Formats: sequence, C-alpha cells, structure tokens
Amino acid sequence: MNINENYKNLSESYLFSTIAKKVSEFASNNPNTEIIKLGIGDVTLPLCPAVIEALHGAVDEMSEKETFKGYGPEQGYDFLKSSIQNYYKKFNVSLDLKEIFVSDGAKSDLGNILDLFSKDNTCLVPDPVYPVYVDTNVMAGRKIVFIDANEENDFLPLPNDSIKADLIYICSPNNPTGAVYNREQLSIWVDYALKNKALILFDSAYESFVSAGDLPRSIYEIEEAKKCAIEFCSFSKTAGFTGTRCGYTIVPNDLDFNGMNLNKMWLRRQTTKFNGVPYIVQKGASAVFTEKGQKQILENLSYYKKNAKIISDTLDKLNIKYTGGKNSPYIWLKCPDNMNSWDFFDLLLTKIGVVGTPGAGFGKNGENWFRLTSFNTTEKTVEAMERFYNLFK
Amino acid sequence: MNINENYKNLSESYLFSTIAKKVSEFASNNPNTEIIKLGIGDVTLPLCPAVIEALHGAVDEMSEKETFKGYGPEQGYDFLKSSIQNYYKKFNVSLDLKEIFVSDGAKSDLGNILDLFSKDNTCLVPDPVYPVYVDTNVMAGRKIVFIDANEENDFLPLPNDSIKADLIYICSPNNPTGAVYNREQLSIWVDYALKNKALILFDSAYESFVSAGDLPRSIYEIEEAKKCAIEFCSFSKTAGFTGTRCGYTIVPNDLDFNGMNLNKMWLRRQTTKFNGVPYIVQKGASAVFTEKGQKQILENLSYYKKNAKIISDTLDKLNIKYTGGKNSPYIWLKCPDNMNSWDFFDLLLTKIGVVGTPGAGFGKNGENWFRLTSFNTTEKTVEAMERFYNLFK
Repeated sequence: MNINENYKNLSESYLFSTIAKKVSEFASNNPNTEIIKLGIGDVTLPLCPAVIEALHGAVDEMSEKETFKGYGPEQGYDFLKSSIQNYYKKFNVSLDLKEIFVSDGAKSDLGNILDLFSKDNTCLVPDPVYPVYVDTNVMAGRKIVFIDANEENDFLPLPNDSIKADLIYICSPNNPTGAVYNREQLSIWVDYALKNKALILFDSAYESFVSAGDLPRSIYEIEEAKKCAIEFCSFSKTAGFTGTRCGYTIVPNDLDFNGMNLNKMWLRRQTTKFNGVPYIVQKGASAVFTEKGQKQILENLSYYKKNAKIISDTLDKLNIKYTGGKNSPYIWLKCPDNMNSWDFFDLLLTKIGVVGTPGAGFGKNGENWFRLTSFNTTEKTVEAMERFYNLFK
Repeated sequence: MNINENYKNLSESYLFSTIAKKVSEFASNNPNTEIIKLGIGDVTLPLCPAVIEALHGAVDEMSEKETFKGYGPEQGYDFLKSSIQNYYKKFNVSLDLKEIFVSDGAKSDLGNILDLFSKDNTCLVPDPVYPVYVDTNVMAGRKIVFIDANEENDFLPLPNDSIKADLIYICSPNNPTGAVYNREQLSIWVDYALKNKALILFDSAYESFVSAGDLPRSIYEIEEAKKCAIEFCSFSKTAGFTGTRCGYTIVPNDLDFNGMNLNKMWLRRQTTKFNGVPYIVQKGASAVFTEKGQKQILENLSYYKKNAKIISDTLDKLNIKYTGGKNSPYIWLKCPDNMNSWDFFDLLLTKIGVVGTPGAGFGKNGENWFRLTSFNTTEKTVEAMERFYNLFK
C-alpha cells in the first residue's frame, strides 16, 4: 500500500502552539499579572434560549418510538433548508431547496468540496489566509498561486488578466483581516470567474457580522454569481455553534463544467461519504431562524460587535491603522513603529499581559500586522484596551 | 475549472428507488393488504434513557457561560475516548487514546480515510458488498478488484497468493450477508496483509450483534493486526444513533508506510477537514458505556436479535439456506427454487405483502439471494414470517 505522497508537502504550523508556549512561560514567571486573551478565535457566549429549547425538544423526540428519528436525508431536513431559504430572501437571493446542503460546518465542506475537482486545477488563495484553504489543496497535490492582500489594496485584492486560476477562494468578511468586499468589488470577481470559466469558493462564515446595509452578505447578491460560485456558511459564529456543529453550503443548480453538474456531483458525494447532521442539531439550528431566535442571536452578535468597537475606538484614538472591527469580529492592525508581528506579540504580552495573534502566522503579507478578536468579555476587552492605550499613547 | 472526471464512472444504483416504486404501486392497487417491511436497514427503537438523560444534561451545559463548549478537539473529547478505550479492554484489546478518533459515523470515515492513500493502490472488495466501498474508490479513480463471497465459502472469502491488493475491505458481521469471520479466518487475512504490505479497512459497525463468545468483535483481537488494519465502528446500530451520528475509527500508532505514519496523517487530515462531533452528541455517546447505558442498549439489541431469531427459525423449519441472523441483524437467504432475487421480491410482495431487499442489488454474487432485516417490531416480524411460512410450507 502506498500513501498519498502529497501529505509530505504539508508544512507544520507552529503559530498557535508557539503562542501557547510563550503565554504559559510568561504566566509562570509573572503569576501576578492578569493575562487577557484577545487572540480567541472561538465564541464564548452560550447558545441562546430558543436554541436550547429546541435542542431539549428534539432530545425528547428521540426518546419515544413514535417521534424517534433514524437516518435522515444526507443533505439536511427540509424544515431547516426552508428556514435557510427564507433567510436568503432577506438579501433578495432566491434559492431552490435542492441548492441547500446542511453540513457539520464550513470547514468540513470547504475541504470535502475539493473531491469534485480535477487535480490539475490551479487554486488562487489570498495572502494572508485561513490556512485550511492551502492545506486541503496541498493534500490533493493541486497547484496554488497567491494573490497579495496588503495595505495598498486594503487587504481586498482584485483580479487582473495575468492571473490564471480555476478555483478562487474568497472569504468576506475576511479571516484574519476583517476586510469586507463591497458589491462592485465582488462583481469584478464574478466577471473574472465567468470570463475564465473559474469557480469561486465563497466563505461567508462571518456574514452575520456585517452591519453596513450596502455590503453583500452572500455572493449571490451579485448578478450571475450562481453560474460561478459555491457559498459556504456556518452557524458557528452566527449563533455560537462552534461546539454544536452545523453549517450549510449552497451549490447552485446552474454550475455546469465538462458536461457535469456540480449540484448533482455534490449530492452524490454527500450521499456516499456523509450521513447528515444530527437531527437534534438541525432542530437547534432551525430555531436560530425563529423570531425569538433571531432576536437572541442578534443580542449576542451585538455584544461581540461592542467589543470590536472598544478595540477599534482605541486604535482610532492612537492613529493606528487597521481593517475589520466594523463588520467583523476581527481587528487587523498595523504594528506601531513598523514592528514585526512576533516582536509586537512579545511586547504586548510582556508589557501589558495582552495576547493577540501575529499576522505573520497567516502568510507573508501578514508580517508587521496583528490580529485582535472581539470574543472575550466586554470587561476584559475594556481592561486590555486601556492597558494598550496607556502603552502607546 | 475542470471536474474530477472519475465521477463520470459512477454507476447509479436504482436498488432502493426501484423497491420504493414497486411497493408504492402495489400499495395503491391493494389498499387492504397490510404491507410489512423487512427490508429496513435502520434502527427503529428510540435512544435509551441513559443517553437521553446525558443529552439533556449536555444541552443544559451549552446554555450557561460557565459550562458552554466551543470548538472541541477534532479527534474527540477524552471522556468519550476513555470510554471507548475501556470498552475495547473487554476484548483484551489495548488502545492508546491517540489511536481513537471520534467521528460522525463509520460511513464518513470509510470514505474520508481514502484521502491518505495513493491513487495507484488497488482495492479488494467482496461481492456482494455495501456499495459505499466501491463508489468512494471509483470517485478517486482507484482500481477495484472483487473477491467472490458465495455459497461455497459461506460468504466468507479468504485470500490466496494470486490476489494483488493494497487496500482490503472486510465487513464482519457483514452487510448484507450477516456472515461473521472467526478468529482463524481473520488471522489468514492479517497474515496476507502483513506479507503483502497491504492495509485492511475493517468495518465493525455490527460488532455489537455478535453473541457467540468465540467470534472476534474487533480485528485487533488478532495478533499483529495493529500493524496492518484500521477499524471503523459506529454507535448507529449499537445504540440507535443512525440519526444522532457518532462513531469511532481506530488508527493504530504502528501503521507506517512509505516513511509516513498513518495515525499522524489521519490526525492531520481530521484537524484540517473536520471540526469534531457535537459536544452534546459525544456526551450522549459516552452514556452508552455506563452501567445503565450498557444494560439498556443490550435490551434493545436483544429485541432485534429476537426478531432475527423469529426469521431464522422460520427459514430453518422450511429448510431454506441462509447466513446471518445469529450474530447480525441481517438474514441473507437463498431464494427457494433458485428463483432470481427480483422475482422473489415480486413474489413476496404480491403474494404476502412482505418487503425485503433483492441480493442482486449488492453484486453479482447476490443473485438468487435475498436480505431480510430484524429492525421491524416483533409483532410485525412474527406476522410476516407466518405469512412467509404459509407460502412456502
């Protein structure tokens, strides 16, 4: 038996393990310093009451023969797909139920969707980037080209005719930069994809953080995007489902390549390699879309957005340049005095006991940049940013 | 963008859709016949009280900030892995916690594990077969060779030196035949794999139906199997988790091929393309292993086993040859008078209103064979087999 040799080309990431090691060393040498973590990439507020109630109700259903649920449809129950369909109507996007696939999260589907594509495609990935886009393609031996996201383009790169790519990754609002494409910019990408017969893999996991009414929350708000884009979304950040696991992927009916239909291919892939999301979890996810659920998750989102504003207001006062923070839980800031990311990390940790994430960990264009997140408590965010202000004022 | 052309080589299976169509036509033409389905491949008893209690408890934990769980370890929580580790001790199998990967079901992992292997490997698949083994390899463009499981070898084929294979699928107790390998037979497979540097993919999803004490429930009961086998198991049939979604995959530390370690490769695959099983579901699964949980699931398993005995006793009385039924929820019978599978299906449906699954749907060696299952109620199973007896006595 021979292994998939492409795995030998994966590079180890030491980003989070190095951070953990530095923090724990500092903590043991400075037991009296209260360390505040603004590097958290996970939600911290509990599931909202409407979801909890639905989960309990579904557990009760599983306890009785009459209401027990065995194997469900691999692509998700209609009750949840209908809720998602209605949600998209708010952005004036009309979806067929068959275009909606309930998943156990955007990360799984972003990896698994690659099953459908030839190995000889070239991927276009922004730098800095969520590492999963790169690693999943390295595993398949696919060629990867990078497009620079940097200060000059406000971390929102646009295509030009010199770029040859078949699979295009776009994450907006972006992780790690928090930057959000506007309608005109996304249209340029859609035009590029249509012209070059490329496919956009659109990661909209952070769409619920978009506050500005004119910014698109789905790529399908752009005309003709259904002919060139698959969209991945998640309840993780929207409703605190990082440990509850539910998302959805939109594979439009109109995606035809090489005489095959991607919607039908994905259905075949999922029915062959997946057995659907737990019934209980789908009931919980469905409650997110009820009137009560929407009100409650918006309260949680407001809490995180308030924290983001505390961070961005501090940076504004200090005249430190940043992206994100307004329509994203991430704030991506330029290290003062052009410090490099890791030196800045060490400075914040040792001088004020605040932990963030060095931008260099996300790619070469992340050097001299730094990521803070809004997922800690308001109290600790205020305290951390007071320390930050006093250090740099 | 070019698609994965291998998808064009997938053949459509019309097995279950054809059955559904025939049943619905018969039902509308014969509204007074009570149709009894012994073709069900899904559990029907509800989750046991110990699991329900654990699920409710976990939902409550998700409702409070102090006990809320976000991202968990992709490979599963230690509390569940420890329970699985202890369960294997009953078979005298010692597992390192790092060898246990909690999954959302055996089907997912049986498909996804193929990410680790070269496309140029040859797979060995028994005929008849669970179609997923074939389709997942067709999707990857891998060469598939079949080994005959038939009446001569009691549907338990063994290797010989003429077989050249790198990846070997074994399902025991088998779906669809219900046949179970004994220790000596499995040892022959392990020896073959070690000698040929092949890897066994061992599907033990039905191990909990094994009653006979001398039959192996894990391939690791066979010496040296940890050097040549990955095992896939599931709570689906063991504890009624078909709609709750949890399983586990054992990837031993000792699997080294081409200078790479499969345990480390699988960890990398899972951390890159998976985010773990819902915390709530893992708590439910863990309750299966408590004293109360074990007692309750054994009651459910006994119920299905009693149904299997009703079926096999009837076949014994009629001198109809079959495999399974004793250590499996499946009964695989030889159609009387050498009828072909679909004719026999039509006969049972039209004469006695009983629905089963034609063996031909699982491969060429399934022709003239027929699958019945023990997942209906005892009352209906009794009624169906009385009708069956009266038809063939």
